[in-house]
Amino acid sequence: MATLTTRTGQTMDRQGMESMLRRRMFYTPAFEIYGGVAGLYDYGPPGCALQANLIETWRKHFVLEEDMLEVDCSVVTPHDVFKTSGHVDKFADWMCKDPKNGENLRADHLVEAVLEARLEGDKKARGEEVQDKEVDPKKKKKKVSAEVKKLDDALVKEYEEVLAQIDNYDGDALGGLIKKYDIRNPATGAEPSPPRPFNLMFQTTIGPSGKDHGYLRPETAQGQFLNFAKLLEFNMQNMPFASASIGKSYRNEISPRAGLLRVREFLMAEIEHFVDPEGGKKHPRFPEVENLELTLLDKHTQLSGQTTTRKITIGQAVKDKVVDNETLGYFMARIHLYLERVGADMSKVRFRQHMANEMAHYACDCWDAEMQTSYGWIECVGCADRSAYDLTVHQKKTGAPLIVRQVLTTPIVEQLWVVDIDRKKFGPHFKKDGKLVAEAIEALDEPQLAKFAKDLEDQGSFTIDVPGIAAGNATVGKDLVKIEYKSITKHSREYTPNVIEPSFGIGRILYSLIEHSFWTRGTEGGDEARGVLSFPPAMAPTKVLIVPLSKNEEFSPIARKMGHKLRQMGISSRVDDSGASIGKRYSRNDELGTAFGITIDFQTVKDGSVTLRERDSTRQVRADESRILEAVQSMVNGSKSWKDVEGELPKFETQELEIREA
Amino acid sequence: MATLTTRTGQTMDRQGMESMLRRRMFYTPAFEIYGGVAGLYDYGPPGCALQANLIETWRKHFVLEEDMLEVDCSVVTPHDVFKTSGHVDKFADWMCKDPKNGENLRADHLVEAVLEARLEGDKKARGEEVQDKEVDPKKKKKKVSAEVKKLDDALVKEYEEVLAQIDNYDGDALGGLIKKYDIRNPATGAEPSPPRPFNLMFQTTIGPSGKDHGYLRPETAQGQFLNFAKLLEFNMQNMPFASASIGKSYRNEISPRAGLLRVREFLMAEIEHFVDPEGGKKHPRFPEVENLELTLLDKHTQLSGQTTTRKITIGQAVKDKVVDNETLGYFMARIHLYLERVGADMSKVRFRQHMANEMAHYACDCWDAEMQTSYGWIECVGCADRSAYDLTVHQKKTGAPLIVRQVLTTPIVEQLWVVDIDRKKFGPHFKKDGKLVAEAIEALDEPQLAKFAKDLEDQGSFTIDVPGIAAGNATVGKDLVKIEYKSITKHSREYTPNVIEPSFGIGRILYSLIEHSFWTRGTEGGDEARGVLSFPPAMAPTKVLIVPLSKNEEFSPIARKMGHKLRQMGISSRVDDSGASIGKRYSRNDELGTAFGITIDFQTVKDGSVTLRERDSTRQVRADESRILEAVQSMVNGSKSWKDVEGELPKFETQELEIREA
Repeated sequence: MATLTTRTGQTMDRQGMESMLRRRMFYTPAFEIYGGVAGLYDYGPPGCALQANLIETWRKHFVLEEDMLEVDCSVVTPHDVFKTSGHVDKFADWMCKDPKNGENLRADHLVEAVLEARLEGDKKARGEEVQDKEVDPKKKKKKVSAEVKKLDDALVKEYEEVLAQIDNYDGDALGGLIKKYDIRNPATGAEPSPPRPFNLMFQTTIGPSGKDHGYLRPETAQGQFLNFAKLLEFNMQNMPFASASIGKSYRNEISPRAGLLRVREFLMAEIEHFVDPEGGKKHPRFPEVENLELTLLDKHTQLSGQTTTRKITIGQAVKDKVVDNETLGYFMARIHLYLERVGADMSKVRFRQHMANEMAHYACDCWDAEMQTSYGWIECVGCADRSAYDLTVHQKKTGAPLIVRQVLTTPIVEQLWVVDIDRKKFGPHFKKDGKLVAEAIEALDEPQLAKFAKDLEDQGSFTIDVPGIAAGNATVGKDLVKIEYKSITKHSREYTPNVIEPSFGIGRILYSLIEHSFWTRGTEGGDEARGVLSFPPAMAPTKVLIVPLSKNEEFSPIARKMGHKLRQMGISSRVDDSGASIGKRYSRNDELGTAFGITIDFQTVKDGSVTLRERDSTRQVRADESRILEAVQSMVNGSKSWKDVEGELPKFETQELEIREA
Repeated sequence: MATLTTRTGQTMDRQGMESMLRRRMFYTPAFEIYGGVAGLYDYGPPGCALQANLIETWRKHFVLEEDMLEVDCSVVTPHDVFKTSGHVDKFADWMCKDPKNGENLRADHLVEAVLEARLEGDKKARGEEVQDKEVDPKKKKKKVSAEVKKLDDALVKEYEEVLAQIDNYDGDALGGLIKKYDIRNPATGAEPSPPRPFNLMFQTTIGPSGKDHGYLRPETAQGQFLNFAKLLEFNMQNMPFASASIGKSYRNEISPRAGLLRVREFLMAEIEHFVDPEGGKKHPRFPEVENLELTLLDKHTQLSGQTTTRKITIGQAVKDKVVDNETLGYFMARIHLYLERVGADMSKVRFRQHMANEMAHYACDCWDAEMQTSYGWIECVGCADRSAYDLTVHQKKTGAPLIVRQVLTTPIVEQLWVVDIDRKKFGPHFKKDGKLVAEAIEALDEPQLAKFAKDLEDQGSFTIDVPGIAAGNATVGKDLVKIEYKSITKHSREYTPNVIEPSFGIGRILYSLIEHSFWTRGTEGGDEARGVLSFPPAMAPTKVLIVPLSKNEEFSPIARKMGHKLRQMGISSRVDDSGASIGKRYSRNDELGTAFGITIDFQTVKDGSVTLRERDSTRQVRADESRILEAVQSMVNGSKSWKDVEGELPKFETQELEIREA
């Protein structure tokens, strides 16, 4: 695997970056003064602002742009809902217990870690070079130190085959592997217990009885499905439409690692787009995106053991059936545009198709938008076709009609076998069995009706099984029943919509975005490298740093007024009137990703001019305050670039000297 | 109690309003197709948009305006945190069980309901008029039907006294009342079990061991306190400062009622303002608000059994010590301004001071902003001085320094007794006891030091108890120790900040705001009254309804482009191109609180002019699309009123006819 580089071509220094993120309080382990809890994090002010900007942009890009129906549903959810959805039975990982120290181990991670270590030991014994594997952070495991020991060639092959399909084993199979290869907990040498399923939902009880079990939702989707009938009504029966929801979800991971990428509490933004399954799932706005080029890694490529991506327009991909349908393709394109808009490095974004064996229990096709980071390729957005699975199971369980009744502008004429029971004669003939016999006849399907129609014609009667009556069957004569092949005109049809679900892990996007934005500025004096986070202005946690040259008291009211003006324009700013040098103050804000700096100096007091500094280039322009604020506004709302502004306003160089000296 | 009226002076029809809110999907019981769960609600599109507007305005009004440090902390919280904060032991209600049907009853609600019913029965027996009591929704109980039966005068007085202080009884006292007055569950006639505490936090376990107990937070505050040291560091050690957090909190109510006002899952927005306890808790921006008049109901008035409010400037209230300090007063004023900004009817807002017995275990002074609704006066914002309680207990438990080290510009000189131990002689003299004796000396407080200094002077030695050594005490001579009264200069001081906490229940504000905004428009034809929600434009879930006059296909691209332009301006709109009459379409949107309607008709196709309708007055103006959109923008951002716009643009009357006819 090639070494990952920053946007400026530097080798990615994750440790340095993470230390900077902690120092600047982007995020911090939750409850740290109590020793912390794995997989729970708090966002500090810059992380929280970045998250709010991601959400605000998401709302504009998806909800407002497409008139989606945003809802905010309950996180605490009663047992029955997740029993029906399948989560109670299937949303689990396999777990072994170490009988010696009581440690809980994820079975697949254990097998993977031990076999990989053995293969590494084998390579070392053979004198081969050991390369760092591309690590999947979703299952990042403790590094097991490898014992240098050569293995049989056949065993090496077996191990490799096991590792290639590690996601496909169930608990029994994992237990079998553990026994077969004598896999033990590396920490203790103990043989682990057989794997048992551990459900990943946090459990709780609702109300005081202690009997009403509930869960914290692991996704926001179910709340949207349960409200489908009301949402359709709200949308005045118009199809297709989408609902959307932004909120926290929870997964009680067995042993979370990899920082913000695998956590127990996380913010999601999910869209459920409801579409008629007939007619090829077309999307009216598909033409707007069909020429957009996406980077795809399809399932066939992966099945052949490759990870080669290709660039292809989404129009072509749908045409070639690489992507199943227009609606799925439309949302993939919209996801691409969103990631671009929030500042992802698009050379580090790809769409990977799920292989059949890795799809969730409800999905019928799925593409993940993955972002490349130092942890490998990270699934940040799932885009799944959940088919009619959820609406169907909830309707079946509750009887609520989670369907669409479509009035047909052109009525459909169908040829059907139709039964006509002569009720007057039927009752007296069958007496107390009458009801059950009639029900059995009405439950017949088309082929059965066709057969009995022939029986009536040929023999004047047919014999039908009726389990509930004494005789077990009944013979029905043509005096009692007619079965005819008729034209039936339908003026409406009923269907259960299919669901296309783009599902965004906001925390994963946030972390990946930080990696995509991070680089360091070497200092000429050979000082330590200084971090920079090159967020687009609209994403920057703070847009403007207001920097009075010194603590001179003439500067303070100017700074305060400028902050007020910027707030009126909807632009966040902070004043740094600390005694630190201007260079130090800018450095700190480069690490915070603050997009611009405005310096107030003695010239400002005289003529109202200020200096505007751009974070990435550190170049500066100088003009009247009003022109500078206007320039900032146009760069924040995206109507101008820094290059445009540099072209329009006079360059300023004096202070840069001071910054270098800092 | 006077009948509550709408903003237009109509009698408040809650049932009618709530039916409208459900029909328009402002909110809906969560999991309704599964039978629902008490106290859990979902917000539909208009409720969700209203909530988002309340939050966005909150962020601008508080976080941005005051440079607060917003954080987003974990909801799932380990046991130890809430053990320390006092919630595990004290955050409970008293509950009885009915042994017959297993029903759980809130003990105070049970006593209250039964005694009130008996008093009502007594009144009826005496032939007195029975008035509906002002109901506190926080403890809204099942109505118990009254048996008509005269009581002894003395008993009536006893009951009344019990009811007046129902909030003050603990479990034992409530159990005593239940026994004494033979209070039974009205539903079954059974004698309930003695009250036991039921903790209101939802419990869960974190991770797979089953041993790590946790809770869903009942407030966002603790996460902010635990991060205090990091936030102070982020704020570059500057005091005072505030953190803020917006997020869900949870309370596992025993039997939630009263719609959105008492729920188990709710959105909070909380500020923790950290302030030096010395110097009278001044606030630098207090002068900006000191002339603002608030409506106050102080504790003395309440203690005298009155509910008479008075209007007073916050400056005067702080001066008179009605409100304890400037910082508390500053935030009360800011809360007032926020409620005004989001559209509360300020004649239905008051600040009520907590009485000593109703304050939370951590608070030392507290004022609630209450909003009047058909459920009574509702606590919507708490504004408490939590003193140094939380930071102190967490520091004590964890040892983390949750303090401020203030560098003193003017050093403090203190006269102190200072011990000087001559280590060279001390060790050899006391041998193995030396360490413990020295520790005992160093632990002495000022009065003890003064006494021993005198002993040294008078007798040449002092005798000190040292529990850990064989002799139990030690005699220390003046050759070993000097104790002198000296001047000590301190260049810094350490203190634990006090916390002023404005805490907003967003759901309660949302509901109260809906009641304050609701009224009905009588129709001239005697039709059913049509609901209107008069939100300020900035709060309206949708700002603009775009209404093509008919389904004519020339209108559709104009409507689409107009929606696009409005989105670019950051203004939410929806197109209603259904076949319904214009009047019907406007009516529906009056119920949704949509602020404006823009009609596209044949004249639009010809000359680009459109009609703009204002929701509350139903009056219309007509002008070029660009001028109309500009007018809408200025009304949404608050720079112009409808009156201003009416003064500038030509009036339009033709279509109003059609609306009346609808």
